[in-house]
Amino acid sequence: MSVREKWRAAVVGLGNVGWGALDAIDTAPDMELVGVVVREHAVARVQKLLPPHLVVTTNINDLKPVDVAIVAVPSRSVAVVAKPILAQGICTVDSFDIHGRDLWRLRQQLDVAARNAGVVAISAAGWDPGTDSLLRAIFALQAPRGITYTNFGPGMSMGHTVAAKKIAGVRNAMALTLPLGYGRHQRLVYIELVPGYDFTTVEAAIKKDPYFSQDDTRVEVVDDVGQLLDTGHGVMLERRGTAGKTANQVFRYTSRITNPALTGQILVAAARATQRLSAGAYTMLEVPLAHFLPGDLQTIVEEFV
Amino acid sequence: MSVREKWRAAVVGLGNVGWGALDAIDTAPDMELVGVVVREHAVARVQKLLPPHLVVTTNINDLKPVDVAIVAVPSRSVAVVAKPILAQGICTVDSFDIHGRDLWRLRQQLDVAARNAGVVAISAAGWDPGTDSLLRAIFALQAPRGITYTNFGPGMSMGHTVAAKKIAGVRNAMALTLPLGYGRHQRLVYIELVPGYDFTTVEAAIKKDPYFSQDDTRVEVVDDVGQLLDTGHGVMLERRGTAGKTANQVFRYTSRITNPALTGQILVAAARATQRLSAGAYTMLEVPLAHFLPGDLQTIVEEFV
Repeated sequence: MSVREKWRAAVVGLGNVGWGALDAIDTAPDMELVGVVVREHAVARVQKLLPPHLVVTTNINDLKPVDVAIVAVPSRSVAVVAKPILAQGICTVDSFDIHGRDLWRLRQQLDVAARNAGVVAISAAGWDPGTDSLLRAIFALQAPRGITYTNFGPGMSMGHTVAAKKIAGVRNAMALTLPLGYGRHQRLVYIELVPGYDFTTVEAAIKKDPYFSQDDTRVEVVDDVGQLLDTGHGVMLERRGTAGKTANQVFRYTSRITNPALTGQILVAAARATQRLSAGAYTMLEVPLAHFLPGDLQTIVEEFV
Repeated sequence: MSVREKWRAAVVGLGNVGWGALDAIDTAPDMELVGVVVREHAVARVQKLLPPHLVVTTNINDLKPVDVAIVAVPSRSVAVVAKPILAQGICTVDSFDIHGRDLWRLRQQLDVAARNAGVVAISAAGWDPGTDSLLRAIFALQAPRGITYTNFGPGMSMGHTVAAKKIAGVRNAMALTLPLGYGRHQRLVYIELVPGYDFTTVEAAIKKDPYFSQDDTRVEVVDDVGQLLDTGHGVMLERRGTAGKTANQVFRYTSRITNPALTGQILVAAARATQRLSAGAYTMLEVPLAHFLPGDLQTIVEEFV
């Protein structure tokens, strides 16, 4: 690894997370950015924001050769965007943020596409799902009987914000997650209403969305969502459980983080891991942690173990 | 996995950690204990403490077939005990607790033995090194530039206690680790002195031992170490660092745990993982986290991710 060339990465989608990924590539010792893929209407605007030598295009084929594509698109678009990229023989990473059965289905779809093309996909490589999932697994392997509580926030949820923005009648939105303790949350959704839309109808549509239907959700109309923006976020994971036959084992993890920067950084760590795995699709739980870190194995083991 | 037979485990060495491993095997859904290997002088005593159907022996060959041996011996005996077990075609796990170059050397030695026999060894599968190492790796992949502090205790260090007990002139010992903050520690070593030994000489030998030479170490003579024993322990891992180009990312992990019970539990999780890996030696950083958990992959992904 120490004398290898850098891995060539492309970023697909340039929202908050995409910009975070650009920063993380730029500061990674073993990655280089070969270009950015955005939608037609964004090409000119994005090209002005990036150094002139960087290709901004609507088609990843313009960027070949690419080792790995960082797919920074809304969760519900990941499958449709990632599959054709995998089919071209390019690895993908994404931060798909829906838990449970939906994630498993995505993994299985990408697994077929990745194996057919002999490349690697890593899904749900954000902080939750993502690194928080790794913590929950470590908690459970240490104390297999017990309860883990995941408490998010306070902070702006990017996934929930994107979901709220997609509701008809919403011009702009910001979804805040407040922890109520023991894994319970309240969602505060601040929206700008498109003139002519009925608040009650829009509110009902937001509350019915799968992103919000499980939680106590409050919707409020404001003049300017921009005045409320802060991408700080965090989590508190807590488990009390039993190791062997011994009770009262207590584990707690807290983070205070900048949401797009952290997600972009984790995506880049996952991009590195794609270059060290055999063909197929993976969640972070299926990848040895050393694969996410730069450098050779001996150095990693001596530094971190 | 759901309808498979249980994996057959043996415990080699029956100190505090060995007993912890017995409890963890007994409560694991996919493990069964086939017997215990102890030294000659302990066979009769240990047999009385265990159910009569369990074989207590000095030789693991009396227990065949065994899928995995949990090697619960002092760190400095791990290589000499594990290598012949691997050579018999039995996987091993250990909680070798010396960091850095010594661990890498052990891993390389066991890697040869494991590959030659087509089996798996997992080393340093305790809580530090072990699960704390996993946390340090997750911290670093989230914020690659920054400093991680590992703060142990307050609590009794088993490795340091064993090391102190081996010093000539020490009849019994207990080593307590106190956190001083930002990764600095004080070691308090309570000893019973063998009559005729000089305290100053014994104290100097303890302070010179590699387990103690890095830290501020205080040695005190007491009448009965037994009155001080408490196997509660804990850690506080903390990192502040930069994700991409965004500073002020803060991560903290704390545990309050029972040392032998947790170590035994982690060894059993690692024993499970040996059955899911290709031949060779591994640290926990090199093993996908899902391998440590019971059950099939889909269930694990849907529950933890």
